[in-house]
Amino acid sequence: MTRVVEADHDPASGRGQMAQLIVPTDAPGVNIVRGVGIWGRPTSDHVEVRYEDVRVPASNLLGAVGQGHQAAQDRLGAGRVFHCMNSIGQMWRAFDLMVERATTRTVHGGPLQDKQFVQGFIADSYMDISAARLMTIQAAERVARNDRGARTDISSIKVFVPAAYSRVVDRAIQVWGAAGVSSDLPLSGMYLGARTLRLADGPDEVHKVLIAKHVLDRYATEGGWDFGN
Amino acid sequence: MTRVVEADHDPASGRGQMAQLIVPTDAPGVNIVRGVGIWGRPTSDHVEVRYEDVRVPASNLLGAVGQGHQAAQDRLGAGRVFHCMNSIGQMWRAFDLMVERATTRTVHGGPLQDKQFVQGFIADSYMDISAARLMTIQAAERVARNDRGARTDISSIKVFVPAAYSRVVDRAIQVWGAAGVSSDLPLSGMYLGARTLRLADGPDEVHKVLIAKHVLDRYATEGGWDFGN
Amino acid sequence: MTRVVEADHDPASGRGQMAQLIVPTDAPGVNIVRGVGIWGRPTSDHVEVRYEDVRVPASNLLGAVGQGHQAAQDRLGAGRVFHCMNSIGQMWRAFDLMVERATTRTVHGGPLQDKQFVQGFIADSYMDISAARLMTIQAAERVARNDRGARTDISSIKVFVPAAYSRVVDRAIQVWGAAGVSSDLPLSGMYLGARTLRLADGPDEVHKVLIAKHVLDRYATEGGWDFGN
Amino acid sequence: MTRVVEADHDPASGRGQMAQLIVPTDAPGVNIVRGVGIWGRPTSDHVEVRYEDVRVPASNLLGAVGQGHQAAQDRLGAGRVFHCMNSIGQMWRAFDLMVERATTRTVHGGPLQDKQFVQGFIADSYMDISAARLMTIQAAERVARNDRGARTDISSIKVFVPAAYSRVVDRAIQVWGAAGVSSDLPLSGMYLGARTLRLADGPDEVHKVLIAKHVLDRYATEGGWDFGN
Repeated sequence: MTRVVEADHDPASGRGQMAQLIVPTDAPGVNIVRGVGIWGRPTSDHVEVRYEDVRVPASNLLGAVGQGHQAAQDRLGAGRVFHCMNSIGQMWRAFDLMVERATTRTVHGGPLQDKQFVQGFIADSYMDISAARLMTIQAAERVARNDRGARTDISSIKVFVPAAYSRVVDRAIQVWGAAGVSSDLPLSGMYLGARTLRLADGPDEVHKVLIAKHVLDRYATEGGWDFGN
Repeated sequence: MTRVVEADHDPASGRGQMAQLIVPTDAPGVNIVRGVGIWGRPTSDHVEVRYEDVRVPASNLLGAVGQGHQAAQDRLGAGRVFHCMNSIGQMWRAFDLMVERATTRTVHGGPLQDKQFVQGFIADSYMDISAARLMTIQAAERVARNDRGARTDISSIKVFVPAAYSRVVDRAIQVWGAAGVSSDLPLSGMYLGARTLRLADGPDEVHKVLIAKHVLDRYATEGGWDFGN
Repeated sequence: MTRVVEADHDPASGRGQMAQLIVPTDAPGVNIVRGVGIWGRPTSDHVEVRYEDVRVPASNLLGAVGQGHQAAQDRLGAGRVFHCMNSIGQMWRAFDLMVERATTRTVHGGPLQDKQFVQGFIADSYMDISAARLMTIQAAERVARNDRGARTDISSIKVFVPAAYSRVVDRAIQVWGAAGVSSDLPLSGMYLGARTLRLADGPDEVHKVLIAKHVLDRYATEGGWDFGN
Repeated sequence: MTRVVEADHDPASGRGQMAQLIVPTDAPGVNIVRGVGIWGRPTSDHVEVRYEDVRVPASNLLGAVGQGHQAAQDRLGAGRVFHCMNSIGQMWRAFDLMVERATTRTVHGGPLQDKQFVQGFIADSYMDISAARLMTIQAAERVARNDRGARTDISSIKVFVPAAYSRVVDRAIQVWGAAGVSSDLPLSGMYLGARTLRLADGPDEVHKVLIAKHVLDRYATEGGWDFGN
């Protein structure tokens, strides 16, 4: 098993000098300290690593020195689109479960589907899924044709989709009641996954700043942003 | 000047018997009581009308008796898409104004565009406009090809777009400060317009119930909703 | 170990005939089917029970037949206040952690505490905790003096406090990044706990309906609601 | 008629050198350029003033040079509490109107008060008014006893109360439908007033930063914030 790590040859020079290296996990000096548990579990395969005088041959360099940051971003860009595609599938599954419960559970004299609160959950979730899906398709299309707006849209779905996913799952849980947070249904796992995605690959706040910077740059250079492009 | 009014020939029979008639405003018995002021203005061209024994010739009937409700909905469906298209144009204009102020106004030692709160406003508005635009295009395409999902999407944008419009204008006003609510800028008018749109052509709540009913019907008859259709 | 169960002697007559009985878990016919896992864990001490022809002596009746529903509500009323008190303590702890991270973590050239997004998190959380705390104190005081408004306020904090708790913990997690969802900090557990509280002791939606009913009753009988009482 | 203006004798030295002067509006050089219209009206009594070589006697100085900023803040602090008190009264009036409409208007086969969406509006508004009221009372009490936490609470209600006021009025308008935005009811005026209050006496964003700074200062000097104080 190997690990890809980013190494900054010259911290003072910033991202321009980043490189990526393959580090075999059995290389001397690689210490897997522990798996870091998440969401209350004692451990996970996200590990804490301590490197002590680890050396690898020059042939372990991925690409050229100075391309490390760009390589990471290239991978992350596509990765963020894949994450969003996956989230949309999960939201759809949660939506199915919400409707299933709404149509089969009767409380206070009628099926849940006749209660406006539940109808509101369905309607709001329909809008969340529609928006998330259309924005992700647009981002993927822009990535595919190398559109310069692609990065803005990737940051945009990076923020929007996990938040929409969280809202849809949250409503599905509420419709199921206690069963919604039980391990009998996939909803509780989705809820944790959606929350984690607001941190993974960069927190929402970083991507909001990036969106603003892209927009401001375009206004500065071209006098406006063309949403219809 | 004429007025088109809906008339229900047989209230007991419900919408199936609705008809639309052209009523000339100078027909005997048509009393324009007053213009109803909105947003603090003393009057408007939305008028209160009292009909007293008004009679019009049979030739003033629009379409056939029994088609009145459907005719109104047909017009409203397209009208709602047009309203949303217009709202997206307004949001875009508000976005331009927000960026203009963010790049030209300096407070507490720096331009507004460098403040994260303002960057967050720009990013959130970018997402709102993107989602509103894509959802409206999808709805219009479905209307154009007579897709049976069109009505759901019309209700969906009827709820989503005015709310997104309200949020974008609200942020633009906040960035401009007191000037944002002044009559020197179009933002205050947009703010009122966006709020009114959440009522016009049916309140949000009615359209949420409609979305839910469409979704539930489809699940009942076909076992699911195909977001990818 | 014993279990207290509610029994409805005459379902047709509704809550007026409910009773509570003590059922020893070793009574013949009490089958503990399984612990129901929550949040991804395989089991828990919330158990699924199947009762088969269980009989207990009449002396196991708690109070009188017909008082079961009221007894449950009495216990739940105080229980909801206790839950909220506990949640406020947790929110405060999450707030401490948020500030700790904001003051010690440096990113993009400065401590997190200098970023407006983080300052916004702190400010919004300050308001959430203040509101939750004051509303809970008011509810507890009304319970203590048997004020007829107590039930409205209990439902009110039952909805408001877990939602505020969720928001505060959510922000603290975001400030901590990946560490926030790890098992190294109490935040991930709080996040799950806060979500569960929006279901426990009745979902938010039931309590919103109750608040509205209390308000509407008061308007119907007394012409208004006195917030200043 | 006179005007009180702030004058900064030495801009380089910042707020420490601010002074307040009484400037009679008939003093030579005071030019009232125009009333600035707000919310679509052509003019208002918020005027644009151009000062040209205006001179006033030294006796027109309010307090001492260097106390101008503090004097303004002192006035604004109390003013913000008064604004919030007023807003709470307006919210209450909007709440009365919301309930009035909910109990008298019938749609789709039943009174609005039986619809969960409307019940939700009532419940959420009950919580908004309760929180706003309790937070404002706490702030006023802290101002009255010169508590050092008073400034934080003033900023807190400056942000929370207008937002809560906006939400309550927004819901009341929605329950009334088109009548809600008409000039027949006070709701449309409240809606504009509530929006303006999010700008008046400093925008929300400035007060959020202030809250965070107060909190961070207290943590830095005393290791924590005592919500229970």
